[in-house]
Amino acid sequence: MIKIGIIGAGRIGKVHAEGITNGVKKACVYAIADPFMNDTQREWARGLGIEHICTDYHEILNDPEVDAVMICSSTNTHADISIEAIAAGKHVFCEKPISQDLAKIKEVMNALEGRNLKYQVGFNRRFDHNFEAVREAIVSGKIGDLHMLHVTARDPEAPPLEYVRVSGGMFLDMTIHDFDMVRFLSGSDVVEVYAAGAALVNPKIADEGDIDTAIITLKLANGAIAVIDNSRQAAYGYDQRAEAFGSKGQIAVGNDTVSTAVLSNADGVTAEKPLYFFLERYMASFIKEVNCFVEAIIEDKPVPVDIKSGLAPILIAKAAKKSLDENRPVALSEIKF
Amino acid sequence: MIKIGIIGAGRIGKVHAEGITNGVKKACVYAIADPFMNDTQREWARGLGIEHICTDYHEILNDPEVDAVMICSSTNTHADISIEAIAAGKHVFCEKPISQDLAKIKEVMNALEGRNLKYQVGFNRRFDHNFEAVREAIVSGKIGDLHMLHVTARDPEAPPLEYVRVSGGMFLDMTIHDFDMVRFLSGSDVVEVYAAGAALVNPKIADEGDIDTAIITLKLANGAIAVIDNSRQAAYGYDQRAEAFGSKGQIAVGNDTVSTAVLSNADGVTAEKPLYFFLERYMASFIKEVNCFVEAIIEDKPVPVDIKSGLAPILIAKAAKKSLDENRPVALSEIKF
Amino acid sequence: MIKIGIIGAGRIGKVHAEGITNGVKKACVYAIADPFMNDTQREWARGLGIEHICTDYHEILNDPEVDAVMICSSTNTHADISIEAIAAGKHVFCEKPISQDLAKIKEVMNALEGRNLKYQVGFNRRFDHNFEAVREAIVSGKIGDLHMLHVTARDPEAPPLEYVRVSGGMFLDMTIHDFDMVRFLSGSDVVEVYAAGAALVNPKIADEGDIDTAIITLKLANGAIAVIDNSRQAAYGYDQRAEAFGSKGQIAVGNDTVSTAVLSNADGVTAEKPLYFFLERYMASFIKEVNCFVEAIIEDKPVPVDIKSGLAPILIAKAAKKSLDENRPVALSEIKF
Amino acid sequence: MIKIGIIGAGRIGKVHAEGITNGVKKACVYAIADPFMNDTQREWARGLGIEHICTDYHEILNDPEVDAVMICSSTNTHADISIEAIAAGKHVFCEKPISQDLAKIKEVMNALEGRNLKYQVGFNRRFDHNFEAVREAIVSGKIGDLHMLHVTARDPEAPPLEYVRVSGGMFLDMTIHDFDMVRFLSGSDVVEVYAAGAALVNPKIADEGDIDTAIITLKLANGAIAVIDNSRQAAYGYDQRAEAFGSKGQIAVGNDTVSTAVLSNADGVTAEKPLYFFLERYMASFIKEVNCFVEAIIEDKPVPVDIKSGLAPILIAKAAKKSLDENRPVALSEIKF
Repeated sequence: MIKIGIIGAGRIGKVHAEGITNGVKKACVYAIADPFMNDTQREWARGLGIEHICTDYHEILNDPEVDAVMICSSTNTHADISIEAIAAGKHVFCEKPISQDLAKIKEVMNALEGRNLKYQVGFNRRFDHNFEAVREAIVSGKIGDLHMLHVTARDPEAPPLEYVRVSGGMFLDMTIHDFDMVRFLSGSDVVEVYAAGAALVNPKIADEGDIDTAIITLKLANGAIAVIDNSRQAAYGYDQRAEAFGSKGQIAVGNDTVSTAVLSNADGVTAEKPLYFFLERYMASFIKEVNCFVEAIIEDKPVPVDIKSGLAPILIAKAAKKSLDENRPVALSEIKF
Repeated sequence: MIKIGIIGAGRIGKVHAEGITNGVKKACVYAIADPFMNDTQREWARGLGIEHICTDYHEILNDPEVDAVMICSSTNTHADISIEAIAAGKHVFCEKPISQDLAKIKEVMNALEGRNLKYQVGFNRRFDHNFEAVREAIVSGKIGDLHMLHVTARDPEAPPLEYVRVSGGMFLDMTIHDFDMVRFLSGSDVVEVYAAGAALVNPKIADEGDIDTAIITLKLANGAIAVIDNSRQAAYGYDQRAEAFGSKGQIAVGNDTVSTAVLSNADGVTAEKPLYFFLERYMASFIKEVNCFVEAIIEDKPVPVDIKSGLAPILIAKAAKKSLDENRPVALSEIKF
Repeated sequence: MIKIGIIGAGRIGKVHAEGITNGVKKACVYAIADPFMNDTQREWARGLGIEHICTDYHEILNDPEVDAVMICSSTNTHADISIEAIAAGKHVFCEKPISQDLAKIKEVMNALEGRNLKYQVGFNRRFDHNFEAVREAIVSGKIGDLHMLHVTARDPEAPPLEYVRVSGGMFLDMTIHDFDMVRFLSGSDVVEVYAAGAALVNPKIADEGDIDTAIITLKLANGAIAVIDNSRQAAYGYDQRAEAFGSKGQIAVGNDTVSTAVLSNADGVTAEKPLYFFLERYMASFIKEVNCFVEAIIEDKPVPVDIKSGLAPILIAKAAKKSLDENRPVALSEIKF
Repeated sequence: MIKIGIIGAGRIGKVHAEGITNGVKKACVYAIADPFMNDTQREWARGLGIEHICTDYHEILNDPEVDAVMICSSTNTHADISIEAIAAGKHVFCEKPISQDLAKIKEVMNALEGRNLKYQVGFNRRFDHNFEAVREAIVSGKIGDLHMLHVTARDPEAPPLEYVRVSGGMFLDMTIHDFDMVRFLSGSDVVEVYAAGAALVNPKIADEGDIDTAIITLKLANGAIAVIDNSRQAAYGYDQRAEAFGSKGQIAVGNDTVSTAVLSNADGVTAEKPLYFFLERYMASFIKEVNCFVEAIIEDKPVPVDIKSGLAPILIAKAAKKSLDENRPVALSEIKF
């Protein structure tokens, strides 16, 4: 039984605490820390059977009973807590992104050097049933050699401007998942990026120097071409699709819905909208990624999303931003790490 | 070039005249007769290049240039005109049903005896792309031995009560196509029928001694069981589906639409309603059935829907009516011919 | 926290034990009993944190800590254990069917009389996301007045002949769920049944006096007509669909799949087969029905599937069998209770 | 009755001759010319009722009976014959592209100046039922302001290298339709293009200086971003889709098939592949575009695809080629005309 300490009891921390309790058989949530831990949260945590509830995550790091920590705090703390946790000899599951600052990521990499510790990054969509099916079709040769890859990711609602301001920009905040998807599905590195983008959903986002709509073309090391389509706001909800085209055929995945119900009436033949947002859509994948992390610890095997895989989408995001700013294709080799 | 005379310039007569002109290369509409031929109709007929336009169909029967006639007049005249046309040595394409009166059908059969003439009945749905695909899957063994067969047929609007009164009842008027579909798709005769029905769309239809909604179970000679689902009025339009289930799988066909467009918005994910009614839905099949009739004449081979195939659905309709009246399964052997 | 004792540690007992542990927050599995409890089962039970593991279910009935029992033993013991549990003052969740013997069901009803105890029957499909969507569309008036209802239920594999012999017949064993679905979805009682059936999957099933294929027509108290389509073996897997047609439209639900993946290649455009069988397909519904049972206890409100709702499908099954044997529609009033 | 002379009796000339004969009521094919007219072609033409069959198209241009000509000859002759036809006072329907040479197109434009003649270019996809549905949804405001537009166009088989050599390159030969679709669907001009492409289907195509796979990003004058996805060879056939995303929703169209048949068996749930190629897929649009051309002549109103609309996709194709060659986004203003 792997004893996990969760650092951060916000939305994603709670998702993981509940996911582990209900769905990860070989682990338990031994402790949880949050500087703003209030009574409601304490009650919720006790309800899940979590023994140790604290405000200072150092209590978790210092507790020799804790095998692994999950870093679910705000993005700007991920790297530093990672380094402390590694120093304390804990396995680490770090929510994405590791950092917006490449130097910080390098520090975490250095800290990991020579340590026999697992470090997994929270790219949960790799563990989603639909995207797994695309990956499986590619790996098994069902579509032959990959020629083109489409990733469509649109959110149901644009975030508030306050969030936009601190988000690091759409590419680092939202598209980062899609950059990871391109790498995961294709099994290939990205060599060049061209991004076209605009603030079409909300022009005030442009005032913040950001965009809310983008078409991003990526040239891959294996010769294939990928394209990502992003919008911060789709009127019909959370649109999460992928399509991989190869020499022998195509594999495509669509959206999940609450039910398969189709209503036929005078207005047409209407199926349901996609599941509302990432909590509804990706819950199973949050549980599955932690199961894999726990398996990697127990069986001492590589984690499925290591720190290099955590770094790569950040580099692509930076290349995409440079491409958008300079209106030209940008090689990944231009982004220094 | 087969010269065809069309008897009856109502809706279906016009459909055939236009279908032959535009889509039947080896035939032409040489003449058309209708007792109520008016100026508009004459102009329409001339526009199609029809040379002979008359009010008395005997002109067509007496014209030695005419190779074949298509009987598109009112149902109660089908049999008598058939007999006259056979006597005149014409090949006959007769719209369905041949007659509501079994004795009349026997007379037509007798008239055909010993004559080297083609006689085809207008069960056009056999020539529809979707139902042909179901038939092909069954014939080719794709679904193995047939176990169950579903035919769904729902009209977009209930007919006026005046029509209901003279229609011969829903089974003879509407379900007759589905009885034919069951025989065509299964390749088997029907041995017993059980009909459950009610007037749920319009209770006044019950006052006329008819129904507008039915579930009809048919036991087939090959051991399979079929079920027909009928409604005189589907709010979403003309619903024409079939599903055949066998030992190796299932083949199902759905509705045709104007386009494949799917609109996703705050209300859901909406595809189009089915094509409005039989003219829109089955136009290609009307042309195809006549092409087959013309081929049968030219190559002196059997017609695809002969008089026995035209009779069978009428016998099933009579068994279904008896079943409904007596609330019990009725064997086809109970219907004397 | 409702303390539940599970009687029977076979397939369905295990499903409930795991479902409660992972998904029913207000209850726990306090005890489990099975006369054939072996070491593997004990280890599994301990892994779930079940404190009391025994071979004699009377230990559970006699334990004052136990609030409720779930009867997951073999069908022929359901009624007697129900009566004992009621006598012991326990709330009861009884797997379907309560009994194949109507007199036994009456005894359970009598035992319940005057006792303030909850008694729920395990018709889990009422709690399925797809069928809930159909029910919701009907209740909310989306399809207007109900005219016709289709329930399609086909298993992926025919059971072994040994099972067929003791199953009580396909109607009591398999169709019973569909009889319940007809009542649940329509919100109406059944007044008459006509069953057409045959052993088409495996003729040896006919030698056992049973069938494996059926089309069953049901006339409902509200005037609508329902039809159930059953096969013991669909080559493409577990086919679980429903379609409700009314004056304003239709609501239809299809099968669930592992993913939404669609592969397009030289062979066609291929989506996945349905989820394999009832454990894969209906797991969420097993958890949801127990949550409702627990809520009913805690809030002292009616259970969603009471003993009368548990009895009704059995009466319909008996009418269907009589219809099949006598080849005539059978009124529910003919089945004496 | 508009009398049309068809110049060129190759594949597309035949398509139009048959389409007009069967589906364009207000026009007839009065004459057809082809320098390589052989006996089979003559017999085919006579079968359609074409009176004048010749080898020299000047006979058509000189015949005062001819109202309009359709230029279906090889691409390199389109412009010169256009100019001759205009001089002869004929309305012109010219197959796409007008010319690969911009100077030639200018000559045609000059020839048209001051003449009261119709000049339509054969961008038939604008008349396709699916793409019309997308356009209609956008025009009617169903999806709000357009943000993103996807056009997917993949051929079933790569052309032979001999064809590739003289095709003018994939952008001018194949993508030209998609460039037109982007303009037609969006109702907007293109201001900048970025093309990523490679020869992934057949590396020998690269030896010819061409590509067979491309992702092309287009910035539109209305602020929206479009992306075209092309492959010369899709294993599952002719893939012709579009998806338009806006502030209020999305409209998407998929492929047409021979039937709606879906086969469910042990291999999965399989629908049909798309209609094979452009003749099967777009036949109705070929007829519709000529009907519109004929209406424009009769009612003296603007043609739906005028010479400027015929020019625009050629300019975009040239910008796309420049983008591919120089690996940078190219503004349309860089292409001099």
